[in-house]
Amino acid sequence: MMAESPRRGVPEATVGRLPGYLRALTGLADRGRSSVSSDELAELTGVRGAQVRKDLSSLGSHGVRGVGYDVTRLSDQIAAELGLLEERPVVIVGIGNLGRALASYSGLATRGFRVAALLDVDPEVVGTEVDGLVVRPLGDLGALAELLSPVAVGVIATPGAAAQDVADLLVEHGVRSILTFAPVVLRLPDAVHVRAVDLASELQILAFHEHQRELAGAGEDVG
Amino acid sequence: MMAESPRRGVPEATVGRLPGYLRALTGLADRGRSSVSSDELAELTGVRGAQVRKDLSSLGSHGVRGVGYDVTRLSDQIAAELGLLEERPVVIVGIGNLGRALASYSGLATRGFRVAALLDVDPEVVGTEVDGLVVRPLGDLGALAELLSPVAVGVIATPGAAAQDVADLLVEHGVRSILTFAPVVLRLPDAVHVRAVDLASELQILAFHEHQRELAGAGEDVG
Repeated sequence: MMAESPRRGVPEATVGRLPGYLRALTGLADRGRSSVSSDELAELTGVRGAQVRKDLSSLGSHGVRGVGYDVTRLSDQIAAELGLLEERPVVIVGIGNLGRALASYSGLATRGFRVAALLDVDPEVVGTEVDGLVVRPLGDLGALAELLSPVAVGVIATPGAAAQDVADLLVEHGVRSILTFAPVVLRLPDAVHVRAVDLASELQILAFHEHQRELAGAGEDVG
Repeated sequence: MMAESPRRGVPEATVGRLPGYLRALTGLADRGRSSVSSDELAELTGVRGAQVRKDLSSLGSHGVRGVGYDVTRLSDQIAAELGLLEERPVVIVGIGNLGRALASYSGLATRGFRVAALLDVDPEVVGTEVDGLVVRPLGDLGALAELLSPVAVGVIATPGAAAQDVADLLVEHGVRSILTFAPVVLRLPDAVHVRAVDLASELQILAFHEHQRELAGAGEDVG
């Protein structure tokens, strides 16, 4: 479990905001900016200014009064913290529309990742090319994962029914980081980090808030 | 701002877990189960048992000792809480691979949503059919949004550079719930609920944890 917790005390919520800061800093650098204030960084990321300062100081970065933070330096520091100074390989399993969208998402390459392999079970999909990569049969997963693990991130974009088996295969072959889009809860060893994105859940959470507004509106009508 | 907060005190974190409970209950119902214990629900959703009981009791649902919760009744209650008893229309803007994946995601129909319209700016995409729906030009967004709002959820699957304009258009025409996949922070009125899924950020958070493990491993080697 020790390897699970950050070596210094960077809180999990701060980690969750680092990608946003990095994205904003990259945008600023692209526009030729060399320094940025915490308030501007706050404005660009939708985080409160005080929180930005707290987050960055937990990385050991302090702005200079009246000058702010050095864009390149802070950028490099966050990239180092996120372990992005070397490109990380990404293995995508399940090359339907979603897998295809991920495979050709240009944002990955510019943000520290390289799509290293695409796999599918469908014989009609295996052998086809997506964004310059040939889709390989799922049977190749073991060899590929061992080649790329432990640094690789496994992405599961399969139907829900296949997700647990794919996750087990990835872990069996040394992958320790998994991003899943399958609408099922994966059962994996504690040492494996899993992030789950469930598109219908995101919509349902929005529906909850809309529903609350409808109820509030109905209350106004009668009351 | 009042309409923003739930009318009773259902905490935001609980709301975030309701879709998971509903998904598990639907699975149980499909397998012919009529009752479920909080511990089994915990196991199915990856939430602690005590948390499940607390969440459900905040909805006014209490299990019966030795019997548990009635699957259909609890399911209906959560669906009602989420405002899913009537299908909610979803409007997807940006019909690239990701938009296409969302449009043809069968999980939406079974979980309370109906893809009502697809829009794009690319003349080569407009007029093509995706899962039975013809892609319409972005110019139709105003009329469509007014027809479907305020209940509709707007989904933004455009490149980052187009996202703010699309969001402004949606809001201008009455949409109050937005799910965005664009890697930019949207600036919108407080009354609009936005959920943002940034794929590269999810990967970067995984990279952080992998990097921490690498550092911990390196420490072990030398120490």
